[in-house]
Amino acid sequence: MNHYLEYAIQLAEMTEGQTGTNPAVGAVIVKDGRIIGFGAHLKKGERHAEIQAIDMAGSEQVKGATIYVSLEPCSHYGSTPPCAQRIIDTGIAKVVYAAKDTTLQETGHDMMAQHGIEVAYRPHPRAQQLYADFYNSKEEAVPIVTVKVSASLDGKQATDHFESQWITSKAVKADVFQLRHTHDAILTGNGTLTHDNPSLTTRIEDGHHPAKVILSRSGKINWDAQLFQDRVTPIYIYTENQALSTSMDHVEIIYQTNIQIEAVLKDLYQKGYGRVLVEAGPNVTSQFLASRFVTHFILYLAPKIIGGQGVNQFYQTEFVTPLNQLPQFEIVHTDILDTDIKLHMQRK
Amino acid sequence: MNHYLEYAIQLAEMTEGQTGTNPAVGAVIVKDGRIIGFGAHLKKGERHAEIQAIDMAGSEQVKGATIYVSLEPCSHYGSTPPCAQRIIDTGIAKVVYAAKDTTLQETGHDMMAQHGIEVAYRPHPRAQQLYADFYNSKEEAVPIVTVKVSASLDGKQATDHFESQWITSKAVKADVFQLRHTHDAILTGNGTLTHDNPSLTTRIEDGHHPAKVILSRSGKINWDAQLFQDRVTPIYIYTENQALSTSMDHVEIIYQTNIQIEAVLKDLYQKGYGRVLVEAGPNVTSQFLASRFVTHFILYLAPKIIGGQGVNQFYQTEFVTPLNQLPQFEIVHTDILDTDIKLHMQRK
Repeated sequence: MNHYLEYAIQLAEMTEGQTGTNPAVGAVIVKDGRIIGFGAHLKKGERHAEIQAIDMAGSEQVKGATIYVSLEPCSHYGSTPPCAQRIIDTGIAKVVYAAKDTTLQETGHDMMAQHGIEVAYRPHPRAQQLYADFYNSKEEAVPIVTVKVSASLDGKQATDHFESQWITSKAVKADVFQLRHTHDAILTGNGTLTHDNPSLTTRIEDGHHPAKVILSRSGKINWDAQLFQDRVTPIYIYTENQALSTSMDHVEIIYQTNIQIEAVLKDLYQKGYGRVLVEAGPNVTSQFLASRFVTHFILYLAPKIIGGQGVNQFYQTEFVTPLNQLPQFEIVHTDILDTDIKLHMQRK
Repeated sequence: MNHYLEYAIQLAEMTEGQTGTNPAVGAVIVKDGRIIGFGAHLKKGERHAEIQAIDMAGSEQVKGATIYVSLEPCSHYGSTPPCAQRIIDTGIAKVVYAAKDTTLQETGHDMMAQHGIEVAYRPHPRAQQLYADFYNSKEEAVPIVTVKVSASLDGKQATDHFESQWITSKAVKADVFQLRHTHDAILTGNGTLTHDNPSLTTRIEDGHHPAKVILSRSGKINWDAQLFQDRVTPIYIYTENQALSTSMDHVEIIYQTNIQIEAVLKDLYQKGYGRVLVEAGPNVTSQFLASRFVTHFILYLAPKIIGGQGVNQFYQTEFVTPLNQLPQFEIVHTDILDTDIKLHMQRK
């Protein structure tokens, strides 16, 4: 195991959720057994990780050095010139990276190797996972989608009377804040606005408030909802109601004749949102879980049983699906948070 | 728990062993819920972590931001101007740090607070440990000392015939390379040169080769030893033999009338070495373990029993110590490495 490559991946992970539809990337430059530069891509349109690290190291020091990058350096002119070219120009001797860029015709690897740089591809599971999600998202032009559900052991988000406050513990609340922080938009339904009236903010110090997305066919929006009180973070309302309008500057209303998850996601991606967290009631949650647009499914289970008639079961479908056609998930990680359990799953 | 403060500490840990007698420090600057700069102190005499991070963020962006630092920003003019002053000048609004700088009269905390900056001290166990070692070392003007021993279950470094190769597993070897990488000097005795003939290098990719220090009262040095073949890394020989000399440029001979651990360590500290790893035979190892100059004691135990008369027991003393006066250690961490166990201890 190479520690420098691990460090580069750690840097990428630190910036997850702040790079929009660009991938989070980290870089470490090493010379004579000593780190001489760190870098991470901090914002779409700004310097790439490799360039940040080269700038920190300085153009003299960087000659003959090795750069460790979480992702293969890019070979194309986007909003910035290709990193592979900059690496060639600065006289870096060796490049080690942990995941391939599968979206480009000419690879950064070949480009650098042709200029006599020693280039090593060292697949690393954590980097592979990080970028697999990213490339799927880029190819489909839809964001990475995380569906979050807090439920009782019998699969209910609330009682039949819509009581749901504090089903899960404070530790789950804190974990959800961190989850929000690492996404750039939160999507919910109008039902949640009505029943729960959440503010959907990130109550962590210096945390990032994701944009808010509301799906409402009817467009019967409760404009007094808490969520509208934050006048800075953008809010998008997707509706089938052509008459819906607002005077609020931070609210944008998008009319669609027939609201479908795919069209909403594609529109959000075009707007620059790369990671969307779905925090909604049974209606919207079920639509997502039944679709193929779920990258991560985070289920917090409180050791309670709610019972009733199941008005708020988190997964409800109009028709019966045969057992062998059910959506399948793979558990990738579990955690005990105070009294509750967290299951992190991916669609199989 | 604040993630940004954790990130700052992670950055410090990535650079441990490359800052000489300066502490390893990491910094992260955050604005509007987004990381805008990373920094770490990379080498004594070069920019401090805070300055690196400010430079990455840029002077415009940094205004009104929060900086998270593993250690309280400095308030004194050393080889660089005080970071506290730079933080004031750049218009940073808030400073959060994880450990106090106990060596300075005027504190960075007070200096910044007097200029209206919100300053928060959040003690963090990992940072506290990192800097407790550093301040003890600075106060006594001796390096942080790690004693490393590989032994059988019956406490022997070798058989009575000095056979010791491969007592521990390959995994231990790899761990020792990482240990060497995070120290700036390795100290050994002349006996180890004679019996084991080690090269004392760091066989990890882009690893750092620590300087080598040899204690030899007699000065009967085997100049053909492997260790001398690396002509780049500095070698220091401490001896009581006034006649000892060499023509090798990378070897420095230091004459002392009566070699004592304390004087050797003080001299190494003056030369700029902040972290010394002791990898030696029973003689030198025992002198260190009996002394008060052991910050960390790493013991790798192989599940073997060697027996014999105990010529190479790792701890040997001339006189008997009463049980209640024995050196005591506290186990801070254990690990299973392949077939062996690693005990990380600190002097109580």
